[in-house]
Amino acid sequence: MNNIVDFFKDCSKKVEVFLDGCLLNSSVFTAGLNEGMRYSVFAGGKRLRPTLVYASYGLFKKDYDVVTPFAAAIEVVHTYSLIHDDLPAMDNDDMRRGKPSNHKAFGEAEAILAGDGLLTKAFEIMSDTSYSPQIPADIRLKAIYKLARAAGDNGMVGGQFADITSEGKKTTVELVDYIHKNKTSALIECAIYLGAVAAEAEEKEIDNLIAFGKNIGLAFQVVDDILDITSSSEVLGKNVNKDMESNKATYPAVYSLEGAKAKADEYIEKAMAHLDIFKERADILKDIAKFITERNS
Amino acid sequence: MNNIVDFFKDCSKKVEVFLDGCLLNSSVFTAGLNEGMRYSVFAGGKRLRPTLVYASYGLFKKDYDVVTPFAAAIEVVHTYSLIHDDLPAMDNDDMRRGKPSNHKAFGEAEAILAGDGLLTKAFEIMSDTSYSPQIPADIRLKAIYKLARAAGDNGMVGGQFADITSEGKKTTVELVDYIHKNKTSALIECAIYLGAVAAEAEEKEIDNLIAFGKNIGLAFQVVDDILDITSSSEVLGKNVNKDMESNKATYPAVYSLEGAKAKADEYIEKAMAHLDIFKERADILKDIAKFITERNS
Repeated sequence: MNNIVDFFKDCSKKVEVFLDGCLLNSSVFTAGLNEGMRYSVFAGGKRLRPTLVYASYGLFKKDYDVVTPFAAAIEVVHTYSLIHDDLPAMDNDDMRRGKPSNHKAFGEAEAILAGDGLLTKAFEIMSDTSYSPQIPADIRLKAIYKLARAAGDNGMVGGQFADITSEGKKTTVELVDYIHKNKTSALIECAIYLGAVAAEAEEKEIDNLIAFGKNIGLAFQVVDDILDITSSSEVLGKNVNKDMESNKATYPAVYSLEGAKAKADEYIEKAMAHLDIFKERADILKDIAKFITERNS
Repeated sequence: MNNIVDFFKDCSKKVEVFLDGCLLNSSVFTAGLNEGMRYSVFAGGKRLRPTLVYASYGLFKKDYDVVTPFAAAIEVVHTYSLIHDDLPAMDNDDMRRGKPSNHKAFGEAEAILAGDGLLTKAFEIMSDTSYSPQIPADIRLKAIYKLARAAGDNGMVGGQFADITSEGKKTTVELVDYIHKNKTSALIECAIYLGAVAAEAEEKEIDNLIAFGKNIGLAFQVVDDILDITSSSEVLGKNVNKDMESNKATYPAVYSLEGAKAKADEYIEKAMAHLDIFKERADILKDIAKFITERNS
């Protein structure tokens, strides 16, 4: 999998250079806000979502830089969601990626605003036609709409709401499915879509890629739930056993640990089937799918 | 000013009917989220920003319904900002529009997510081409970009950051100007821009309207600061004397109450001058500007 490691590295580099140029402070009164936004954006992380945008785009075109604004926007949405999820009123996590979480480093009000600023920044980036001006306006609008749907109350925000309000309630398969589909899978599916729509892929291709994205997204969250039980804080860079302690609705809670592992494999298998039409052009996407189940952090 | 009262009523009605159809719940697991979002959106309020969108659009065209999605989106951004501003970690306000603020009614985590959901919803609405499909894609993108800039770290979020971090610090004219320009004026200016750009106004017209919007936005916040001192909770529907108690950077703190009143008049005068080119077509906008200084809540 050397190839895939390099691909992740290249994609991360591209998106980080772009974000470094985007996240500029414009006033002496907002230096702290800018610092807080940059702190979480540049705190490391796998850059899975941007990498998926590039991999999906790469099925059709090789001028990867065109799709960088979309890759950057989705990473910024992901980062905002982590900042808000960690807040004391939400999951109350004081560690993230091996460092103090945003509100621990900057204060609670500052963290709320850093999150708000990043979410808004994503749409600023997506609608800024000076970035990749060759992307047609109607394609850009489709991408913005999909990102808003994936991130909003019928997507990620809805999933997070179901997650925090599930604590202490009876865990059902329907609830866990809803949380995973919306809290995590929606944005991963969206990443795959952004690459495909930017490359102006055909409808049938996009449909298959969306189904691929949805299934690897579900697998990703199942593995996350499993790692919360089997891994350590040192490896994950965040506190473990949090889900169990807060009696959260997770896959292991519903299916047992072994059952959850089988479920992750099942999702990956389903995902792979949707890549058949692309033949060996989809090797990178297949490697990313394997990485998702085999990762240890 | 009977005319202007009716105009506000008509605009509010249009935008509320639209939002009622937009803010739908899609899952049994997010009913509480949807309820929280709707609670604040339908809590009353002057609907100043939507009304400005319509008034600006009305300078050029009379098919007002076309611009309703833009009017709705900006109101939703305004509502999210109130929910987050009221949070315990921010201004810690337990009353808003005469009712318990969102986190008082639904809980803190729920209020953070209702705000996040509404901010995201604004961009979903703006990019949904099934709403007012006659708006060209490039115009829609310009509108989204302006809204994101006005609402983000170099706009409203930046202003709020400067505001909360100003408490207890030395209040300077530069700081107060920054807060007013970004926290309040940016979104009001944006409302005026959205109407004008949707109507495909000419550059010179847009420039004058932006200058008008900026100045009435500044006047609006000065009057807000004044009302916080001179009005009562009953009339305002929120707590008063909060600014003074938290030693906030306000106009009365820098210029005295009388000085602040003069400043508001000065802004309105400047604003009015930018309407000259529109002659009597701008009567509604002039009435709105007058309403801003003469209001008592």
